Amino acid sequence: MKNMVYIQSGGPTSVINTSFYGAVREAQRHPDQIDHIYGSQNGIEGLIDDYLIDIGQEDDEQIELLLQTPGSILGTTRRKLPKDINDPIYGKIIENLKKHEIKYVFVNGGNDSMDTCYKLSLLVKQLGLDFVVIGVPKTIDNDLAATDHSLGFPSCAKFVVNTVNELIKDACCFKVGKVHIVEIMGRDAGWLTAAPDVLPEENRPHLFYLPENKFDLDQFLKDVKEVYAREGYAMVCISEGIQFPRDMSNVRVDGFGHAQLGGAASDLCRIVEDKLNLPTRAVELSLTQRACPAFISLVDREEAIKTGEIAVKSALEGVTGKMIVFKRVSQNPYKIEYELADLSKVANAVSLIPQSMMKDATRMDESYRQYIRPLINGEVTLKCKDGIALVSNFKRVRV
Amino acid sequence: MKNMVYIQSGGPTSVINTSFYGAVREAQRHPDQIDHIYGSQNGIEGLIDDYLIDIGQEDDEQIELLLQTPGSILGTTRRKLPKDINDPIYGKIIENLKKHEIKYVFVNGGNDSMDTCYKLSLLVKQLGLDFVVIGVPKTIDNDLAATDHSLGFPSCAKFVVNTVNELIKDACCFKVGKVHIVEIMGRDAGWLTAAPDVLPEENRPHLFYLPENKFDLDQFLKDVKEVYAREGYAMVCISEGIQFPRDMSNVRVDGFGHAQLGGAASDLCRIVEDKLNLPTRAVELSLTQRACPAFISLVDREEAIKTGEIAVKSALEGVTGKMIVFKRVSQNPYKIEYELADLSKVANAVSLIPQSMMKDATRMDESYRQYIRPLINGEVTLKCKDGIALVSNFKRVRV
Repeated sequence: MKNMVYIQSGGPTSVINTSFYGAVREAQRHPDQIDHIYGSQNGIEGLIDDYLIDIGQEDDEQIELLLQTPGSILGTTRRKLPKDINDPIYGKIIENLKKHEIKYVFVNGGNDSMDTCYKLSLLVKQLGLDFVVIGVPKTIDNDLAATDHSLGFPSCAKFVVNTVNELIKDACCFKVGKVHIVEIMGRDAGWLTAAPDVLPEENRPHLFYLPENKFDLDQFLKDVKEVYAREGYAMVCISEGIQFPRDMSNVRVDGFGHAQLGGAASDLCRIVEDKLNLPTRAVELSLTQRACPAFISLVDREEAIKTGEIAVKSALEGVTGKMIVFKRVSQNPYKIEYELADLSKVANAVSLIPQSMMKDATRMDESYRQYIRPLINGEVTLKCKDGIALVSNFKRVRV
Repeated sequence: MKNMVYIQSGGPTSVINTSFYGAVREAQRHPDQIDHIYGSQNGIEGLIDDYLIDIGQEDDEQIELLLQTPGSILGTTRRKLPKDINDPIYGKIIENLKKHEIKYVFVNGGNDSMDTCYKLSLLVKQLGLDFVVIGVPKTIDNDLAATDHSLGFPSCAKFVVNTVNELIKDACCFKVGKVHIVEIMGRDAGWLTAAPDVLPEENRPHLFYLPENKFDLDQFLKDVKEVYAREGYAMVCISEGIQFPRDMSNVRVDGFGHAQLGGAASDLCRIVEDKLNLPTRAVELSLTQRACPAFISLVDREEAIKTGEIAVKSALEGVTGKMIVFKRVSQNPYKIEYELADLSKVANAVSLIPQSMMKDATRMDESYRQYIRPLINGEVTLKCKDGIALVSNFKRVRV
C-alpha cells in the first residue's frame, strides 16, 4: 500500500490545478514512499466507480502546464456523500482504495468537499484502516473556516478587482451615465464582491451589497438614486447570493443541494428602471471570474504549490483528518504560516466577513482592504501560443 | 490655426486610448506645425458644447498609461449628427473649431462615428474651410468596410478566445455536463463570436451562431441535442445580434438608435431547458470583453500606435476626408500596409463575414482561422501596483 490518490471537488478555481501540481511534484520527490500517483476522475465519483487515472503516464510538459490550466484537470463533482456511514457507497470507496493499494488520500475542495473529506476520515478511523486523509483548502468564495483565506480566492478577487476597474472606466466615459450592477459570485459570503473596494478611491465602486447584510430593496433604491444624482452614473457590486423578492421559479439546484444562482443583477436593473426611471446595465461575471489564468495572483500560485507540497509531506508523516490552513503572522510584509486544522472544525462551517471589516451597510472598512491587498499581489506570465494561453491536456490513462 | 482636436466616439475598446496615444506622441514631434493638442470631451459633444481639454497639461506618465487604460479617456458619445448639413449644430461645431484655432480634426470610431466624420468633412469642403478631417478606425465588431480589420477587434477577439478556452475547461470537468451558451458582442457581424474557432480542435466550441446566417430555432435545438448526446456537454457561441422570437419589450435604445442587446443566451438557455430538458448555463461576456487590458494583443497595440501616428502625419500633409485602413499584403509572415480610404466608402457601410469563411451554418472555415490567427498574437505586460493594472487619470484642464 504505497500509492496516493488526489481528488478535486466542487467548482474550479484558477489555482485548483496548481495545488495538485504541488502535490504531484512533492510526491515525485519521494519515490521510496509513494509508488503511484493517481487522480480520481470527477472527484469522489472516481473512487466510487473505480475510475482512477495514472498521473505517472502524463508528460512532464503537461504537468508543468497545470500551473495555468483552468477547470479541474481530474474532473470534479458536487456529489455529497450520504450521512449514514454504513451506506454501501462507503464500502465501494474502501474497496477501491484497497484494490489500488492506496494509502494517501487528498481531497481538494471547499466546505461541502471538506465534509466528504471529514466523513472519509471518520470512516477510516472507525474501521481502523491504515489510510490517511488530508484536506487541501479551495474555494473562490473564501468562506472556509479556520483559515486566513482559501486557495483560489486571491486570484478570483484579482480578476474581480481588475474587471470592475475596467468597467468603471467604461461606465464613466459616457455623458449620460447608467446604473451598472455587477453580479459577483458568493452565495453566503461577500468576500469576492467586496474586493473592488481596494481600488484607489477615485476609481472605486460606489455601493456594495453583500449576503452578510440583510438586503433592503427600498434602501437600495434610495442609495442608487442618491449616487446617480451625485455622480452621473453608479457602479454597484452585488453578491449573487443577496436575497430580494424575485421570481425564482426557473432556478436549478446543484448536486450539493444549492440553487444555481445568477440573474440577480438583471432583475435589480429591471427594478431600477421601473422605479427610478434610470438607464441600467447588468453585468454578471458568471463563470469567467473563477478560473481566468491571466489574473492568477502570484501569492495564490505560490501558496497553492506550497500547500500541495505540505499536504503530501504531512501525509507521509502520518497526519490524517486535517486540512492545511493559513495563519497570517505578519501584515507588512505579508507572511503566513501553514498549519493543520481538524476537519471537524472545517466541514460545513462558513466564514463570513466580520462586521468590523465593514464601514457601513454598503462600504468596506480599511481593515478589509488591508486584509485583501497582499493576497491579489503579483502577476504571472502565461505560456502562450498564437495568442492563446496553453492548457494542459491529459492522456488520462485509466488504472 | 495650428491646433488639433481628437475625438473618441462610440463604444470603448482595449486600444482606443492607444491610437490616441500614437496621435499625441506624433503631434508632439511637430511643435512647429501643431501648437496645442486638444481632446473633445464626450466625442462630438465637446465640439458642440465647447468643452475641450488641453492634453498638453497632462503628466507624461499619465499619457504613457494610455497604452493600458480601458474606457475612452476623453469620454465618448453615441450621438448622431443630423442629416441636414444646415442644422445649427454644425454652425456651433465650426464656430468652436474657429474659436480654438483648430486645423486638424481626428475622429476615432466605428461605422456610426465615421458617418459623423464624413459629415464634418463634407461640411468643411462645402464651406471652403481650411480644416482637415481624418478618421481613425475602431470597432470591436470588426464590421468597418474598406479595411482588413479594425483597431480593438484583435484584442477583444483575444479576450473572447481565451475566455471561451477557459469556459470549455470549466464546462467539461463535470460528470454531468451542461449546455453552455456564451453570448458575445456583435450586432450585425459575427467576427467576434466566431473567434474561438481558432482554438485547438480538442478545445474548440461545438457550435457558432452568427448574425450573418438566419437563425432557425428548430435547427438550433436539433444541433444542441446532437452535440450534447455525443459529447456529454455543449459549448455554444452566439452573437448578441442573432434574431429569434423573444420578449423584447424591456429593450432599451442607445443614442445611435440601436437596441441595447443582451439576454439572448439566457433566453435560449430557458428554451433549451424547456424543449430538451437539459441543464444549461448562460454566460454573457457583456462589457467585460471590450476593454480588458490583460488581453491586449501586441499586434493590435502596435497597429493602434502606428495608426495614430499616420493619422497625424497625413493631416499635416493636408489629407482630408479619409480614414486610415489596413491592407493585408502578406499572410505568413503577417504584414499589413496602411492606406487611406474615402470616408464616403466607410460611413455607415457594414462588413460581414463572407460565406467563404464559413464551413457550414455552425462552423468556420480554415480561411477564417488564418485571417484571425495573426491578429490576436503577442502578449503585453501591464504596469501594476498592488495587483491592480494602473489606469491613466487625466486632470482634464478645460480650455
